Amino acid sequence: MPLTPRKDLEVFDNPHPDTEYQVEMECPEFTSLCPLTGQPDFAVLRITYVPARKCVELKSLKAYLWSYRNEGGFYEDLTNRILKDLVTALEPHFLEIHADFTVRGGIKTSVTATHIKEGSDE
Amino acid sequence: MPLTPRKDLEVFDNPHPDTEYQVEMECPEFTSLCPLTGQPDFAVLRITYVPARKCVELKSLKAYLWSYRNEGGFYEDLTNRILKDLVTALEPHFLEIHADFTVRGGIKTSVTATHIKEGSDE
Amino acid sequence: MPLTPRKDLEVFDNPHPDTEYQVEMECPEFTSLCPLTGQPDFAVLRITYVPARKCVELKSLKAYLWSYRNEGGFYEDLTNRILKDLVTALEPHFLEIHADFTVRGGIKTSVTATHIKEGSDE
Amino acid sequence: MPLTPRKDLEVFDNPHPDTEYQVEMECPEFTSLCPLTGQPDFAVLRITYVPARKCVELKSLKAYLWSYRNEGGFYEDLTNRILKDLVTALEPHFLEIHADFTVRGGIKTSVTATHIKEGSDE
Amino acid sequence: MPLTPRKDLEVFDNPHPDTEYQVEMECPEFTSLCPLTGQPDFAVLRITYVPARKCVELKSLKAYLWSYRNEGGFYEDLTNRILKDLVTALEPHFLEIHADFTVRGGIKTSVTATHIKEGSDE
Amino acid sequence: MPLTPRKDLEVFDNPHPDTEYQVEMECPEFTSLCPLTGQPDFAVLRITYVPARKCVELKSLKAYLWSYRNEGGFYEDLTNRILKDLVTALEPHFLEIHADFTVRGGIKTSVTATHIKEGSDE
Amino acid sequence: MPLTPRKDLEVFDNPHPDTEYQVEMECPEFTSLCPLTGQPDFAVLRITYVPARKCVELKSLKAYLWSYRNEGGFYEDLTNRILKDLVTALEPHFLEIHADFTVRGGIKTSVTATHIKEGSDE
Amino acid sequence: MPLTPRKDLEVFDNPHPDTEYQVEMECPEFTSLCPLTGQPDFAVLRITYVPARKCVELKSLKAYLWSYRNEGGFYEDLTNRILKDLVTALEPHFLEIHADFTVRGGIKTSVTATHIKEGSDE
Amino acid sequence: MPLTPRKDLEVFDNPHPDTEYQVEMECPEFTSLCPLTGQPDFAVLRITYVPARKCVELKSLKAYLWSYRNEGGFYEDLTNRILKDLVTALEPHFLEIHADFTVRGGIKTSVTATHIKEGSDE
Amino acid sequence: MPLTPRKDLEVFDNPHPDTEYQVEMECPEFTSLCPLTGQPDFAVLRITYVPARKCVELKSLKAYLWSYRNEGGFYEDLTNRILKDLVTALEPHFLEIHADFTVRGGIKTSVTATHIKEGSDE
Repeated sequence: MPLTPRKDLEVFDNPHPDTEYQVEMECPEFTSLCPLTGQPDFAVLRITYVPARKCVELKSLKAYLWSYRNEGGFYEDLTNRILKDLVTALEPHFLEIHADFTVRGGIKTSVTATHIKEGSDE
Repeated sequence: MPLTPRKDLEVFDNPHPDTEYQVEMECPEFTSLCPLTGQPDFAVLRITYVPARKCVELKSLKAYLWSYRNEGGFYEDLTNRILKDLVTALEPHFLEIHADFTVRGGIKTSVTATHIKEGSDE
Repeated sequence: MPLTPRKDLEVFDNPHPDTEYQVEMECPEFTSLCPLTGQPDFAVLRITYVPARKCVELKSLKAYLWSYRNEGGFYEDLTNRILKDLVTALEPHFLEIHADFTVRGGIKTSVTATHIKEGSDE
Repeated sequence: MPLTPRKDLEVFDNPHPDTEYQVEMECPEFTSLCPLTGQPDFAVLRITYVPARKCVELKSLKAYLWSYRNEGGFYEDLTNRILKDLVTALEPHFLEIHADFTVRGGIKTSVTATHIKEGSDE
Repeated sequence: MPLTPRKDLEVFDNPHPDTEYQVEMECPEFTSLCPLTGQPDFAVLRITYVPARKCVELKSLKAYLWSYRNEGGFYEDLTNRILKDLVTALEPHFLEIHADFTVRGGIKTSVTATHIKEGSDE
Repeated sequence: MPLTPRKDLEVFDNPHPDTEYQVEMECPEFTSLCPLTGQPDFAVLRITYVPARKCVELKSLKAYLWSYRNEGGFYEDLTNRILKDLVTALEPHFLEIHADFTVRGGIKTSVTATHIKEGSDE
Repeated sequence: MPLTPRKDLEVFDNPHPDTEYQVEMECPEFTSLCPLTGQPDFAVLRITYVPARKCVELKSLKAYLWSYRNEGGFYEDLTNRILKDLVTALEPHFLEIHADFTVRGGIKTSVTATHIKEGSDE
Repeated sequence: MPLTPRKDLEVFDNPHPDTEYQVEMECPEFTSLCPLTGQPDFAVLRITYVPARKCVELKSLKAYLWSYRNEGGFYEDLTNRILKDLVTALEPHFLEIHADFTVRGGIKTSVTATHIKEGSDE
Repeated sequence: MPLTPRKDLEVFDNPHPDTEYQVEMECPEFTSLCPLTGQPDFAVLRITYVPARKCVELKSLKAYLWSYRNEGGFYEDLTNRILKDLVTALEPHFLEIHADFTVRGGIKTSVTATHIKEGSDE
Repeated sequence: MPLTPRKDLEVFDNPHPDTEYQVEMECPEFTSLCPLTGQPDFAVLRITYVPARKCVELKSLKAYLWSYRNEGGFYEDLTNRILKDLVTALEPHFLEIHADFTVRGGIKTSVTATHIKEGSDE
């Protein structure tokens, strides 16, 4: 079945739930639309998480990020929406997104949003 | 008037047609679609040219590259089509496009296409 | 309305006030005047903040930094004045400015000023 | 005797058990097979440990990593399996593996798994 | 149909045979076996060619390079065999392979083999 | 006398007119105004020349570049105007300007203009 | 009045004594004499401080560092003498000097000396 | 008297025993012999220490490191032996050696050994 | 048979004498003795050659370079002696040695010696 | 005899006058005085030459460069004077000096002077 953009994220069972380890994913192929001008925006996303019971499936993450291609959003909003979707799907011990957007108006902006599970000692 | 994706390129008169100089434009915000899978492709374009009577207008170039966002094309084809459109619009002494695509199948591909005006001693 | 240099900063409502996240802006296009000689000074500014209820609008920040173009100031003074203006406008949990000035007298100077909101556990 | 791929790790006595020191090994020559497609995967491994009574023998580590050449495994699984094998063989105060895999689906993934001996004050 | 290692290379018609352009492919995922010890060797390959009537298909190139995974060969031999296979399949104006092998015996070796079509003015 | 922005360039006699040598000056502190929007533009200039009978005085060059601070100009125009002013003042064997402007519209532009004295074998 | 080498350091009033900020100065133009051989030594100095009531004047710092040009001193001694002179003049909350000397006898030495004001919570 | 390889280290009195400062020495010219094969090994050593009453003399350190040229030792052993010799000679507050050996068997190994004086609050 | 330092170089038949290709070997583990002081010298050697009928065997090259470990020689002399030994053994179309020695007296010296076979059109 | 600054350069016989090879010396420890202000100037010198019958002695070159420590000179003049002194002493086939001075007035200047022996086919 061909890959298509979609908002739901597929997960699989953490194969080593007895150890605490960290996964980092660098996604340089992110693009969305500026909500004011409709022009394309571009970013490199870095997603870091410590899995609890679930891990995110790689192809599914690709399809999820693709779903922003024709969708508008301010930098601060996009980063937090992706954070919340991933946290809902993965319920991780820790999850952080660093979104590094390209230059606009001579200024380069990046946004870093972090989730720490309550009761976690991370 | 808001910027929209469009295939025609605007030009302006070369302000110094008496000297031979080179313009280089680095465009890291290029994306198109894979003609086989429909999935997004990404590239950094580097356009280098020696203007004759015309120069390309910056915003117009941005709108032109934007027009590939929902359009399919193989790497070799895309690079040459952009080359030919720019040569038609600018009739430059020299024009080269270097398109540096992101990794697919563990392989990173780039395509470099060059136009030299006949009779030019470049 | 065309952009002009101005001292007031526009803000917008933080779209995710329930999460604590960080915004970083790199502004390599800052220039002011030396208060002693009147000659231009140049710096790269890096502004990092954790928004509370407000975020700074990108174009407004550009216009604000532009307002220093014909204004004098010592390095230590300029950095702290920008810090205080941003803190007044944004009332953030945390805000830091790192200003990296170009070489004068064979010496390269940078100034880093930090604001932490009282009662914040940052 | 020629080197062959094997799962058991040879160790030697820590020559300085009275001091607490750290050994780091960078292994850029790791390859395994994707459990879904059977295609080769590639990674750079960085193994860091604080030896207790045993150190890992270099050639034996090379043979151990070689043993994954025709073996399938997801990134998260492979990294933790190697961690556990090394911990079993070395019983170290501390051991960490950082596995940096090559790009798949436009995304670069790395996994970092850490073991800290119970009762260690590391 | 799943991808499997195979020695034959698939090609497609050059979409722009009227222009002379260059394609460069960086393949960091190459591994073979040492013909003396049977131990794995690793290299980064850089393939550069100027297509005539045919271009190499990306997935096919991946499968071709994969076919060396269980095959022995000295550095000088491997590089030239790959060169000759590609030249036979593509009949290009120009083709060059730069193979950058990892350190053995404290020495890092690379081999660069070049084919220029007779009668070509490259 | 304090330094002020001015268009005339001071020169001094080449102390070694019998040898052919090259002077390169990197000037990262260049700023002008966009002729369309009035907003500041920024560039790094690299000036390379082979002196004939005259060399440019360093402070004078600084004052000359300063004179563009409140002056508008397109990238292609500015670079060529500076080239021509320097060529008029220095009558050098060879002079080249490479102007590297900051990102606008997601595109980074640089302009390289070159003067070679007629009858020179450079 | 022309700048001359001198040991006394000029200071000015901290323009923002109400905020705690840091100033860093990189001085790559430091040279002294080896006390054993009389041969020149060279270093890059990095001075970092948190001002209390006084800031160091840039030209004065240049003249102070110049005063070591014809003066002998071992690396460990020079770094600490500069530290103590700056602490005496500035009475800062914090001051650190990192002196990075060039290679002698195949060995590259750097010295880092730090002052923290008593009662400071730095 | 010409420099010769020798195991004893010369020291001199710390010129500033009243301040706590750090000395770092980078020694890229270290070579020893593999105790198994007799073949040369190579490393870059980084020695960092906080002197108490004594500092190590530079030429003496060079002669000491030279003394390993015809001496065998495993990486873990060599690093700790050098640590212990330096600690005995200097009785420092803190001393750390980071030894970065060259690639063997496709693996690059480094060893970091640390001494902290009892009762020191480092 | 264990590897020992020796001056004779082993060669093997060029497996592709019909193509003209280049081999480059980077050897960072070279050390010799200063003929004046007897102290160790260190260099990184880069050997580049275009084989004719013979290729140099890797282990043999390692043993050959090892043979300089207890041998004196000035930089200019050593580089040319190695060049001549390799040319005698390989009779290549082209051979170049770039020897990059470490800093002595504050000066870093490198020597590049080149052999081009007579009648070669390289 | 201790090294002292002196203008005469010592040479030794080229040990391989039958081959044409190149020597490059990087000298980061050069300082002179500004002829206008008397303030110190600093540069990194890169000297490249193809020896004919003589090579320059390393310690002597160090003493020669030292002799500029208390001597004034403009950048263009200093570079050419050093070129001429070296050419007189060495009578080389080719000699080039690249002098990279530190920033003054926000501008970084370098000077490259070249000597080619008449009748040389370099």
